[in-house]
Amino acid sequence: GITSTHARVSEPSEEMSLETFPPPAGYNAPEQVHITQGDNAGRAMIISWVMPLNEDGSNVVTYWIASSDGSDNKNAIATTSSYRYFNYTSGYLHHATIKKLEYDPSKSRSRCSLHIRYYSDLGQTYASNQTLYNYMSNPKGQAVLFVGDLSYADDHPNHDQRKWDSYGRFVEPSAAYQPWSWAAGNYEIDYAQSISETQPFKPYKNRYHVPYKASQSTSPLWYSIKRASTYIIVLSSYSAYDKYTPQNSWLQDELKKVNRSETSWLIVLVHAPWYNSNNYHYMEGESMRVTFEPWFVENKVDIVFAGHVHAYERSKRISNIHYNITDGMSTPVKDQNAPIYITIGDGGNIEGIANSFTDPQPSYSAFREASFGHALLEIKNRTHAHYTWHRNKEDEAVIADSIWLKKRYYLPEEETA
Amino acid sequence: GITSTHARVSEPSEEMSLETFPPPAGYNAPEQVHITQGDNAGRAMIISWVMPLNEDGSNVVTYWIASSDGSDNKNAIATTSSYRYFNYTSGYLHHATIKKLEYDPSKSRSRCSLHIRYYSDLGQTYASNQTLYNYMSNPKGQAVLFVGDLSYADDHPNHDQRKWDSYGRFVEPSAAYQPWSWAAGNYEIDYAQSISETQPFKPYKNRYHVPYKASQSTSPLWYSIKRASTYIIVLSSYSAYDKYTPQNSWLQDELKKVNRSETSWLIVLVHAPWYNSNNYHYMEGESMRVTFEPWFVENKVDIVFAGHVHAYERSKRISNIHYNITDGMSTPVKDQNAPIYITIGDGGNIEGIANSFTDPQPSYSAFREASFGHALLEIKNRTHAHYTWHRNKEDEAVIADSIWLKKRYYLPEEETA
Repeated sequence: GITSTHARVSEPSEEMSLETFPPPAGYNAPEQVHITQGDNAGRAMIISWVMPLNEDGSNVVTYWIASSDGSDNKNAIATTSSYRYFNYTSGYLHHATIKKLEYDPSKSRSRCSLHIRYYSDLGQTYASNQTLYNYMSNPKGQAVLFVGDLSYADDHPNHDQRKWDSYGRFVEPSAAYQPWSWAAGNYEIDYAQSISETQPFKPYKNRYHVPYKASQSTSPLWYSIKRASTYIIVLSSYSAYDKYTPQNSWLQDELKKVNRSETSWLIVLVHAPWYNSNNYHYMEGESMRVTFEPWFVENKVDIVFAGHVHAYERSKRISNIHYNITDGMSTPVKDQNAPIYITIGDGGNIEGIANSFTDPQPSYSAFREASFGHALLEIKNRTHAHYTWHRNKEDEAVIADSIWLKKRYYLPEEETA
Repeated sequence: GITSTHARVSEPSEEMSLETFPPPAGYNAPEQVHITQGDNAGRAMIISWVMPLNEDGSNVVTYWIASSDGSDNKNAIATTSSYRYFNYTSGYLHHATIKKLEYDPSKSRSRCSLHIRYYSDLGQTYASNQTLYNYMSNPKGQAVLFVGDLSYADDHPNHDQRKWDSYGRFVEPSAAYQPWSWAAGNYEIDYAQSISETQPFKPYKNRYHVPYKASQSTSPLWYSIKRASTYIIVLSSYSAYDKYTPQNSWLQDELKKVNRSETSWLIVLVHAPWYNSNNYHYMEGESMRVTFEPWFVENKVDIVFAGHVHAYERSKRISNIHYNITDGMSTPVKDQNAPIYITIGDGGNIEGIANSFTDPQPSYSAFREASFGHALLEIKNRTHAHYTWHRNKEDEAVIADSIWLKKRYYLPEEETA
């Protein structure tokens, strides 16, 4: 594999201050607006916003068909919550689901080309800002799949929850205009026993709603959505997943539901990477890998996106599913039925770059670089997709890694970068 | 290792009917009494009971020093809960903690000999009955460590919660008179999405309280207690345990607290076995093993008791902690710093015996037998303990497996069965 010689200087990125993102002006002004797919099939959207006061009408969103004159507008009523965390009390967190939306007529499901962006571990530093605006400068992106570790509030004294608010304002210029779909990372756990905050994921679950019930999940931490010809499964590295647990039972049923003639591309998001040749978080994904990897190969998952490691890496198509305790067969081998594993935890957060790759580069690793950036997956049709990774430093157009992907389900053939 | 030729006939054990354990006679009679250690150090006890009505005085337990005339009796007020599960509503579940108890003067902590019984996956069949009364017929047992899968209510239509009540009555003759300490198994999850019961462990958490806060845990599913010279850590196979999760952080801190000069024996209870050469549940413990095994070897855990597999097995002292994805080093090797792993899931439940051992017997397996029974650990002093396993079929005195154990912390030497 390739270990890119281009390596970002490893000093931690400087955090943008709270003052960089003040509350919006105006009385009880809505803020931190973000949207996400509101059902499984893609004909609903969850609109989320925060307001300082819970006055009449604060929980209503009005919407209408873009091409109409707005006279046929409709209202959707939000669910509203607020939470306390140590000495912080949140504003009023509104989430309204608008339904029966039409697909964009210019794209029908079966032959659509779809551009999905991936990034993770964004945080709110000047490097994060570069990642976000680098992405927004390219009109191609239609949706964002975010693989965990959002605000990095946890890195601040008492998990300073105001950093969740500033994060919501920071990403609003993108997240309010196209759906961002979320996976939870360790920074979303917000577990702090020393200040008696022991309910995992409390801020994240209050602030970021996902359509988990639409895929028969019983938790927002694991769910699935369909987006054009892509079936996207989101898992939780930090919830129970052993046999008999809810996440395990859900995934077992979920994989049986994937209809590859309808959604031919199968993509999984999970925060902790299974194949990661960086010393940071090395082998932290092993426990989930031993439980789920056989299912991924069996079901011909195309790509697994992970975050957590603050660098970029793309694996070859490999698997390690024949070990039986006594046979010693525990080395990843080439496997054309296996997914490609991509670590995209290089959003640019406060902890800086993870530039400590193991040496030599293991045979399962195709390309790795200690740089910030984001990835773009362009689904061209049922059998081909073009995947690119964009290094932050450069102008958006410069692609630092790319590969033409062939659909495992139809074309489990070798791919060349 | 030895694969015992003695194998119990494998037909499922016949369940004792609900009518076998009717509610006690009398108006609002307390039932399902069970006690468990109520603090970390062993000077408190949680007294639990159930009553059909929540009338004045129902939540009070009166206690006095055994040798006194009872005139100095004291009261402890219980916490009380009740729960609904599908079409069932429980009685009133009372749990009162009585504190500042005296150690039994005949045994002082440092040189005490302690007899602890171990069993798991008991259920309420005629075979379970044999296991319980076989145990009770031996006066040696002073406490029971139960490694999960209690009532098997989950095996009955809609998780028939009356089977939790009958189970409470079934074990009362022992559990009301000596402390049973509990680990949770998969049968305690009681997760049934089809009947909208999606809060894992609801019946178990309501019915069986443990002193988890006393060991700074934030969940009753993982905690520790000290019992004479033994430090007992209870883990949850079916809760999150990856790095950053509460159970992981708790165990990391907990292992640092163990003072081996005070509690020289370190024992872990966890339902899903890591070393199990039975085809049933084969490798289900792998995901927790890859996360925690290095810690157990590092901290010289003496014994790990597991359940889940309905047969008996004792491992040699082995470890498998040097694998690094690319080195292929993934075979268990002899390790005198490692624990012995004992699977004791042979309490006798409704699913019958698991008599499908892998062949040949792996080198890490010392003794295995497809029979019901229970184990006894007699802590003789700081360095030696006598461990025995008692097959149900025989008279209590017949020991079917035994070994003199040497304390890893002081005497990490070979042991011979």
